[in-house]
Amino acid sequence: MQIEFLGTGAGSPSKQRNVTSIALRLLEERNAIWLFDVGEATQHQILRTTIRPRKIEKIFITHLHGDHIFGLPGLLSSRSFQSGEGALTIYGPRGVADFVKTSLRVSETKLGYPIKFVELTDAGVIFEDDTFQVSCEKLDHKIECFGYRVVERDHPGELQVEKLRALNVPSGPLYGQLKAGKTVKLPDGRVLDGKDFIGAAQPGRIVTILGDTRKTDASAVLAKDADVLVHESTFAKGEGKMAHNYYHSTSIQAAQIAKKAHAKRLLLTHISARYTGKLANELAYQARDIFENTRVVNDLDVFEVPFGSSKTD
Amino acid sequence: MQIEFLGTGAGSPSKQRNVTSIALRLLEERNAIWLFDVGEATQHQILRTTIRPRKIEKIFITHLHGDHIFGLPGLLSSRSFQSGEGALTIYGPRGVADFVKTSLRVSETKLGYPIKFVELTDAGVIFEDDTFQVSCEKLDHKIECFGYRVVERDHPGELQVEKLRALNVPSGPLYGQLKAGKTVKLPDGRVLDGKDFIGAAQPGRIVTILGDTRKTDASAVLAKDADVLVHESTFAKGEGKMAHNYYHSTSIQAAQIAKKAHAKRLLLTHISARYTGKLANELAYQARDIFENTRVVNDLDVFEVPFGSSKTD
Ligand SMILES: [Zn+2]
Ligand SMILES: [Zn+2]
Repeated sequence: MQIEFLGTGAGSPSKQRNVTSIALRLLEERNAIWLFDVGEATQHQILRTTIRPRKIEKIFITHLHGDHIFGLPGLLSSRSFQSGEGALTIYGPRGVADFVKTSLRVSETKLGYPIKFVELTDAGVIFEDDTFQVSCEKLDHKIECFGYRVVERDHPGELQVEKLRALNVPSGPLYGQLKAGKTVKLPDGRVLDGKDFIGAAQPGRIVTILGDTRKTDASAVLAKDADVLVHESTFAKGEGKMAHNYYHSTSIQAAQIAKKAHAKRLLLTHISARYTGKLANELAYQARDIFENTRVVNDLDVFEVPFGSSKTD
Repeated sequence: MQIEFLGTGAGSPSKQRNVTSIALRLLEERNAIWLFDVGEATQHQILRTTIRPRKIEKIFITHLHGDHIFGLPGLLSSRSFQSGEGALTIYGPRGVADFVKTSLRVSETKLGYPIKFVELTDAGVIFEDDTFQVSCEKLDHKIECFGYRVVERDHPGELQVEKLRALNVPSGPLYGQLKAGKTVKLPDGRVLDGKDFIGAAQPGRIVTILGDTRKTDASAVLAKDADVLVHESTFAKGEGKMAHNYYHSTSIQAAQIAKKAHAKRLLLTHISARYTGKLANELAYQARDIFENTRVVNDLDVFEVPFGSSKTD
């Protein structure tokens, strides 16, 4: 599981940063890519990565500002052109379907796959299956905006084969029953409880990706114990009033959320063109006074999401 | 007057070529830029040029396929963000207003300037003023598609000041009257006819920019005596059947149009990703057997449109 930043700028594209898009790479976990926001030229950025558009399974839109959605029609078209045939689900605020459908209708684009739209109205769980659960909360932006929390299911513990061999338990179908946690009677009369031979469960990882927002409690709810929190930092320390007026956050506010939520890592994005080059790193230095494990991300940065040792750490 | 190619590829963006957009640079002529088509990431390409979005006065859309229009919402937003305040006119097939208005409405984008939409239904003159006239014709594409002919008005001849000085004509308001072609009586009694002191008129230039199309007579009508003809060449020599089936042209067909129309120069664009690198130049070599002055263009190429010696050359 990796997070790849396709666009990390605010508002308009610049030579340094494209507008927002984030890929959650779940190739090992489900042979899929999930995108969060699709600013204009996201498909161009993807050309510079190893991502194949047909692997994109879900797209989560935080809000409908142009710098977060204007790349959708082109990406959807190219996914079809490049033989993407699997169904795609798009989650986002009301209006996202109108935008996509109008774009495809006017351009007479026929996609080779179905799109399912899930327009969000309230906080709650919006997707779950055997491996992941995704929930959302409303944030505090000028336009309706959602943040997303992606929770991986715990990985069950491995069967401790060495321990069984040491007890001269013969391999075979028995091992499967023990792995399933069942109690088993051996041919020699011994009775073994599977639970005694299964290692510790590997807790699933939690990734929280927020849209544009003022500092809000909803962000801390979404980021609770997250392994990685992606938070906007359109403004710097000391610009709290401006951040409030423009419905955005400062680096300090992002760090306060990370700290409050007991997140493990904070990645700052949605960086204003006012902070070019090394100036952008200032945003991280400011945040570290409050939350140590903070970085400002750049376009095409990739971050591994590591397993934690345990959820109760 | 220059033609700057912002995107020269067909269908989907590639690392070598962005999707279609062409800038007609009229900075000396009217302190303005006209765009022809706005594929996705046209605003990103503009960042690599000296073009300022606020100078964009008119946008001509050839047809509504995504690779020709999906950059419109972002470009319009950034033009506003960069203090563009002058009115903008968008010409194009029916549906272009629906696409733009829906995009701006859904994204709650408020532009700081008015847009006038001129949706085209028939061939004819669509714009004229003191310096330029623009007309369109319907081409032969899968979707309704227009080609554009931009005709610069003739530049009136210059007043031949040296000739007047040689005749000892005193400078002053008299010169203005002579320049206006009037007959003037000098203080010493001589009578001069302004027409005898005005140089030859400089014929205006003609630029023809076509959208995607099969070979069609309408293209030759638009390109008649053009100084520059921009024609698509999605396919190569020998691929006429494929070109027909996909509603596109071959390099040979483009050259045939240029020859028939007595155009002076042919620029081939809308190059398929099948023709990468030097392969693309093959398209020009093929065309030159029929029309010598042919080039395949690349992204960010700029071509000066020179004055011809006279229209009847
Ligand atoms: Zn926003
Ligand atoms: Zn087309």
